[in-house]
Amino acid sequence: MLTICSRQLAPVPWTRVEIADRFWQPRRETNRTVTLPLEYEINEKNGVLDAYVWDWWDPAKGNPPWRIWVGDISKWIEAACYSLGTRPDAELAALVDHAVESMLKGQKEDGYLYSNPLPREWRFANLQELHELYDIGHGMEAAVARLQATGQRDMLDAMCRYADLLDATFGHGEGQIPGYDGHPEVELALVKLYRATGERRYLDLAKFFVDERGREPNYFKQEMEKIERDGIFHMGWYKNWNYSYCQAHQPLREQQEAFGHAVRALYLYSGAADVAAETGDAELLDTCRRLWRSVTHRRMYVTGGVGSSPHGEAFTFDYDLPNETGYAETCANIALVFFAHRMLQLEADGEYADVMERALYNGVMSGIGLDGKSFFYANHLTAYPQSTLVGHAADHVAVRRQGWFGCACCPPNIARLISSLGGYIYSTAPDGLFIHLYVGGSVTFQAGDTSVKVTQRTDYPWDEKVVITVQPEIPCEFTLGLRIPGWCRGARLRLNGKSLSLKDFIDRGYTCIIREWRPGDTVELILPMPIERIEANPRVRMNCGKVALRRGPVVYCLEEIDNGKELADLMLPRDAELTAEYRPRLLGGSVVIRGKALRRSAVGWNDALYRAGRSKVKEVDILAVPYARWANRTPGEMIVWIRER
Amino acid sequence: MLTICSRQLAPVPWTRVEIADRFWQPRRETNRTVTLPLEYEINEKNGVLDAYVWDWWDPAKGNPPWRIWVGDISKWIEAACYSLGTRPDAELAALVDHAVESMLKGQKEDGYLYSNPLPREWRFANLQELHELYDIGHGMEAAVARLQATGQRDMLDAMCRYADLLDATFGHGEGQIPGYDGHPEVELALVKLYRATGERRYLDLAKFFVDERGREPNYFKQEMEKIERDGIFHMGWYKNWNYSYCQAHQPLREQQEAFGHAVRALYLYSGAADVAAETGDAELLDTCRRLWRSVTHRRMYVTGGVGSSPHGEAFTFDYDLPNETGYAETCANIALVFFAHRMLQLEADGEYADVMERALYNGVMSGIGLDGKSFFYANHLTAYPQSTLVGHAADHVAVRRQGWFGCACCPPNIARLISSLGGYIYSTAPDGLFIHLYVGGSVTFQAGDTSVKVTQRTDYPWDEKVVITVQPEIPCEFTLGLRIPGWCRGARLRLNGKSLSLKDFIDRGYTCIIREWRPGDTVELILPMPIERIEANPRVRMNCGKVALRRGPVVYCLEEIDNGKELADLMLPRDAELTAEYRPRLLGGSVVIRGKALRRSAVGWNDALYRAGRSKVKEVDILAVPYARWANRTPGEMIVWIRER
Repeated sequence: MLTICSRQLAPVPWTRVEIADRFWQPRRETNRTVTLPLEYEINEKNGVLDAYVWDWWDPAKGNPPWRIWVGDISKWIEAACYSLGTRPDAELAALVDHAVESMLKGQKEDGYLYSNPLPREWRFANLQELHELYDIGHGMEAAVARLQATGQRDMLDAMCRYADLLDATFGHGEGQIPGYDGHPEVELALVKLYRATGERRYLDLAKFFVDERGREPNYFKQEMEKIERDGIFHMGWYKNWNYSYCQAHQPLREQQEAFGHAVRALYLYSGAADVAAETGDAELLDTCRRLWRSVTHRRMYVTGGVGSSPHGEAFTFDYDLPNETGYAETCANIALVFFAHRMLQLEADGEYADVMERALYNGVMSGIGLDGKSFFYANHLTAYPQSTLVGHAADHVAVRRQGWFGCACCPPNIARLISSLGGYIYSTAPDGLFIHLYVGGSVTFQAGDTSVKVTQRTDYPWDEKVVITVQPEIPCEFTLGLRIPGWCRGARLRLNGKSLSLKDFIDRGYTCIIREWRPGDTVELILPMPIERIEANPRVRMNCGKVALRRGPVVYCLEEIDNGKELADLMLPRDAELTAEYRPRLLGGSVVIRGKALRRSAVGWNDALYRAGRSKVKEVDILAVPYARWANRTPGEMIVWIRER
Repeated sequence: MLTICSRQLAPVPWTRVEIADRFWQPRRETNRTVTLPLEYEINEKNGVLDAYVWDWWDPAKGNPPWRIWVGDISKWIEAACYSLGTRPDAELAALVDHAVESMLKGQKEDGYLYSNPLPREWRFANLQELHELYDIGHGMEAAVARLQATGQRDMLDAMCRYADLLDATFGHGEGQIPGYDGHPEVELALVKLYRATGERRYLDLAKFFVDERGREPNYFKQEMEKIERDGIFHMGWYKNWNYSYCQAHQPLREQQEAFGHAVRALYLYSGAADVAAETGDAELLDTCRRLWRSVTHRRMYVTGGVGSSPHGEAFTFDYDLPNETGYAETCANIALVFFAHRMLQLEADGEYADVMERALYNGVMSGIGLDGKSFFYANHLTAYPQSTLVGHAADHVAVRRQGWFGCACCPPNIARLISSLGGYIYSTAPDGLFIHLYVGGSVTFQAGDTSVKVTQRTDYPWDEKVVITVQPEIPCEFTLGLRIPGWCRGARLRLNGKSLSLKDFIDRGYTCIIREWRPGDTVELILPMPIERIEANPRVRMNCGKVALRRGPVVYCLEEIDNGKELADLMLPRDAELTAEYRPRLLGGSVVIRGKALRRSAVGWNDALYRAGRSKVKEVDILAVPYARWANRTPGEMIVWIRER
């Protein structure tokens, strides 16, 4: 029978999930065979691997260690470990061992570790800028991943030593620092470390950082005065500069709107959600809900991209979502997945899964090319190549994917998301299993004393059908919670061939089947995927009169290579028929959308810039491709929002 | 009889033109009684008047002399002189005398004059940045205006001394400087000085500057190396930086497109047109024509605003005309009037007058408030107040008119254009008079030996009717050329009550009546002014699907105070009736446009950011006001381009 769902979830760890499908598996293989080796190689070449051995750097030679190198290589280790845990690879394992070994060589007696030969008195003296805690937060995440993947504790022990140093150093006690890092990350990492070790002090320290941030007197203000700086990275010239860049403008619990640097904000919200989950802190959970709504109801691109302004890589104001000059950093979009995933466990509301899926299939995967070795830092929704050649408004806007970045936070971040994808698909509830994402593959979990394997067969997101097979060791009763995506209307369900009516049985985005499951029981879920025209809220001034095309969770775009130049002049008639078709050889195999649109004819314009009267229009064929796969062919214009007529 | 026109024009000087109408006369009075006294006062307070006495400045006190102060006060003197020449004002005359006296006190024995106590060896050593020649160019223009207005030669003599110094200093001779100023202006000023004095060396020097600029080896490059600077104003960081900012990227004659800082570009083009006019240099005229087309056919806002990018206050690329972040500096739009006026004399083509009028009634007059004491530096076509509060893309975008600017080039520039307006209305041809602008008032000119007074009575630009009365001392034959504006279709003409068919008698924007004119002969010209919906070329990506409303020469906009917030969501149905009505008490007396539009209803959106399916729309009243008069009431949103449905 179908039932209303229970709502206490815990993610099924990636170690118990197998992914085997046509959509993700090739990307994960590319991640393993191209992206991870490439990232290692670049890090090695740039000196990142040796940076921990503090005496390597000769100032005369230039190329100084970069403040987030520990974070960069840690994210790479983490990414590689997720891959190793699901797909053994001796070569990759050797690289990981070498990277960990190099890193740990640089650790000081007392646990401290940093990519720059800081004199001891400078430690933790410029928290706002130097990212020491951000770095080691990534180290902690990597250490936990390594433990899970291969059982190796070396990195975990090292990170615990650093965590112990932090615990002794930070706080309100005598001689302690009442500060926090300029870039949140260690908060969520300390909760991970707590979960891996059971060491309560780590959770308490995470809570301390979450609560301390933004209190008066402002720690960063005092710190800057002490070291005589005029603002972080000398950015005091930033208009209306305040500490929101570092999430220190206000205590988190008092914040009403998502503001400031988007990655910093979302890493902090994620850490706060973790702390709330572990402590049952209702006020903190409420804060997370409020900021979630601010981000996702008023400040998020249709692609799940967030942080619309390049200035400070930041949130701006409600409904301010410029397309051509938009930012939506890959890391920010990934961070939205992190936050969504955490909120989903706390509240089991499909809205969180919807946003997680939206970001994943669009604004996150747009950050990496199909070749696995080309990246976008910013994931804007319109490309007009000429505009990137003049002025500065579009400085961050690339129309070609790039090989690497001076600040290379995004490439390893997307690598770790791809390799840990298994961890986002399922959750267990006390009474059963929830499926959040439809991805071909399988999971094993315990239903009471019984081990159950659940298998998904699907061509999602291209196809509407998901076949779920349940294989308990012995028949047993449990609840199977299935997400009915927010984008989907008219979902249908068949259990062992028999239709079940979903009417009245979808609660906050999930429908739950509770029964005694027998080996071979099969659920067929149909999630109809008509092509839909999405409008943005009337207050999104950039998109008035325009629609975005979406099919299933996938948002589409028009590229110049398929549709010619001056895409802004295309108009999609309201009643124009649009058809979807799978093209196996296009962009790694993609469903594309075809249809007829109109564009103004150049006839009669001659060399005129303005004229009274109406232009003739002509009909043209259009072809839309998944936004996440744009810029994998000849570079050119691109639009997501299409004028409707 | 009507005839095809002759085409050799000379402007009728402002001294022989009287303006008496309801549109311009109040603005000119405000200019005289508010703007000019205010500008004097601010200049005085800021030390501009005393700056010429080089020993005034105490570096310890800050507020150092600014490089364009000589230019600023000269433009003010020039503006005040035009006013004095048409409307005596003892108080204003005293201020002018004092300003001139202060300025000339600072002049050195050899003619040199600058607002900064430069050591002698620094003179002309940093031409790219210091604006010495730009400054003195404005001094020359002021000196000529003073001579014309009051017959006083003091300033003219002083400027000639400086011009002689320049003539001795610049050139290819031994010990001479083969350079030119970073900011064009002296070129057109030297031609003015030549015309006032007959001194051919001044014209030759103007030609030298026009020709020398941008030649290899690049003078500015050599200069920068010599003084060890990394680029003008240390702007070497500018993306794709080149010497186009100073119009020194290429010799003018080789330039194919308008590029670089718009004011610099258009001042140079104006100077080049002057040189071409005086020398008959066909190649140079051709260059002017080519750059004219680049500016006005591909890089100009519908308001006549130019220079769309705040970065370098510059032209960018064809059809790149952003609305919300556009620049279109008041000075650039004024400079377009200068250039248009010069080309018009050279070619008597109505296209030049059309652009002159377009800029004048829209992008120029938008630069000054109806109060005469509030200004816009940038004249963007969309205002969305919240966007000015974040990031830097909109740094230059003001949504309130401002009292003054750190770099105060625009306020005196607009003051001088307003007070010299008479000089733009008429030209004489060898065989008669041409009327370019329809402005109530009169002109006197010589037709052979006969003095003729021509009077215009009209409520242009609000009303379609212009009544022209011709009063020769004795009956005499001459041609009266009347501009038929490019925006006008169906113009009608009556001579002493009798209709004349214009068919086949409009040649490049003018119709010419040749006859023996008798005292009291009356021409009635009807220029029908339906409200028109203007489209931008399909390549202007910002305006696809949108129209601008224009009536006569006036471009309209929608302001929040009349139409509510979220103006971008308004849609004007294709068949929506629009009506014009004169409102005597609104914005100084303006014709407004009223009609019905649609906007999406908020119903059903709740807190959603995106949704599939169509929003309901509701009908709303809209009221459009002249763009040039926006931001004279409660600040808020504004749009020029309105979506059409």
